[in-house]
Amino acid sequence: MGFQPYRSPSTGRPVRAVLFDTFGTVVDWRTGVARDVAAFATEHGQDLDADAFADQWRALYQPALDAIRSGQRSFTKLDTLHRENLDEALRHYGINPDRLPGESLEELNKSWHRLPPWPDSVQGLARIRRRYIVGPLSNGNTPLLLDVAKNAGLPWDVIVGSDMTRTYKPLPQAYLRTAEFLDLHPGEVMLAAAHNSDLLAARESGLATAFVGRPTEYGPGQVADLAPEGDWDLAASRITELADQLGA
Amino acid sequence: MGFQPYRSPSTGRPVRAVLFDTFGTVVDWRTGVARDVAAFATEHGQDLDADAFADQWRALYQPALDAIRSGQRSFTKLDTLHRENLDEALRHYGINPDRLPGESLEELNKSWHRLPPWPDSVQGLARIRRRYIVGPLSNGNTPLLLDVAKNAGLPWDVIVGSDMTRTYKPLPQAYLRTAEFLDLHPGEVMLAAAHNSDLLAARESGLATAFVGRPTEYGPGQVADLAPEGDWDLAASRITELADQLGA
Repeated sequence: MGFQPYRSPSTGRPVRAVLFDTFGTVVDWRTGVARDVAAFATEHGQDLDADAFADQWRALYQPALDAIRSGQRSFTKLDTLHRENLDEALRHYGINPDRLPGESLEELNKSWHRLPPWPDSVQGLARIRRRYIVGPLSNGNTPLLLDVAKNAGLPWDVIVGSDMTRTYKPLPQAYLRTAEFLDLHPGEVMLAAAHNSDLLAARESGLATAFVGRPTEYGPGQVADLAPEGDWDLAASRITELADQLGA
Repeated sequence: MGFQPYRSPSTGRPVRAVLFDTFGTVVDWRTGVARDVAAFATEHGQDLDADAFADQWRALYQPALDAIRSGQRSFTKLDTLHRENLDEALRHYGINPDRLPGESLEELNKSWHRLPPWPDSVQGLARIRRRYIVGPLSNGNTPLLLDVAKNAGLPWDVIVGSDMTRTYKPLPQAYLRTAEFLDLHPGEVMLAAAHNSDLLAARESGLATAFVGRPTEYGPGQVADLAPEGDWDLAASRITELADQLGA
């Protein structure tokens, strides 16, 4: 009969699509952003700790999404939020963004499009792809996710960006509308993520769940998400290990 | 400096994404559907000319889309239209679909998900993908296009189905919304298609255009779309030849 897809004990259904949180789970945003920040700082004669700046920039991410999740602000794509947050991060470091060339800031904002994959990502995704649909389930907008994939060589089958679902994780519609776009029951979709809160929300929306540990996503001093904190269907420390667990 | 993308003389812009009409241009729907119709006819003891039945089924496609394009009917996905048209095609041959098992009809409807690629498609797309974004620009809905891609091995970067644009070619919004989802100017998007009418509509929406000849799409007696009928930017008889022309 051939391949038997993994059946999630929590959903009771065979998994058809394995969708990945992307920033942190598949690509290493901190290394990628810090690299471009360092080059930017050198070019413009700014004295910046590139790692700390990357952390600061990222720290503004959830608050920016919160304004949209709460309905205070209408849906705005992540590229735009990143650009606004860049200005705010610069001001945090006492740098006036209005004194820097707009083109250079746009270019630096594109650092989120050029993130390196974790060492196991490309091979792991390629293996899982042979047996399942693979794609991102990310707060990124489609062109951002597409650029990330092209630059990192991620072999997605399909990209349903947040600009298509018009909402942001961890709101339930982010998971449910993605499943709907794929004509799948939520229980046939597995979210693979390095963040326990994301997995919790996915489970509450009826998805299958897999934790992929990324203990240095936030650098060597990371304190959160070092291990699975829920009874997720699967837990792995690499996407290639997840491929093993999925029989792919 | 590296690769210089093809610049369309008609749009004056470099092409960033090469998007393909899919049914007919990339995959051979007639052969694939007829194959499954023949198996279905044998299984259910029906006497059917499988090629003629495939043609009849496909002949109902444009009228079904017309009802939606004209606003008579609200947006309905292609999988549903195919299923309705299957019933109508059976009745055309004097077969009452209500006397056949629903599951078998659903399965036969899935023949549109399992179409063989033309011999040059996979290699041609893989080559173009190294230098450009590649994807479908089709009236198919996303899960249908995804299945077609998985089954035929089409290496798309991204799939923006008609369920995302909520409209059908050749209405301008089908082309324009697709470009918008990719954050591209319409002139940075090239439509590659075997159908002159599709290319005409794409050009009128400001896209770059490439004709890919498929002179046997409708079988050996095909009379239309045997050659480019407009001053399209490019014309090729295979997708691999288009890859050459695009420098990919």
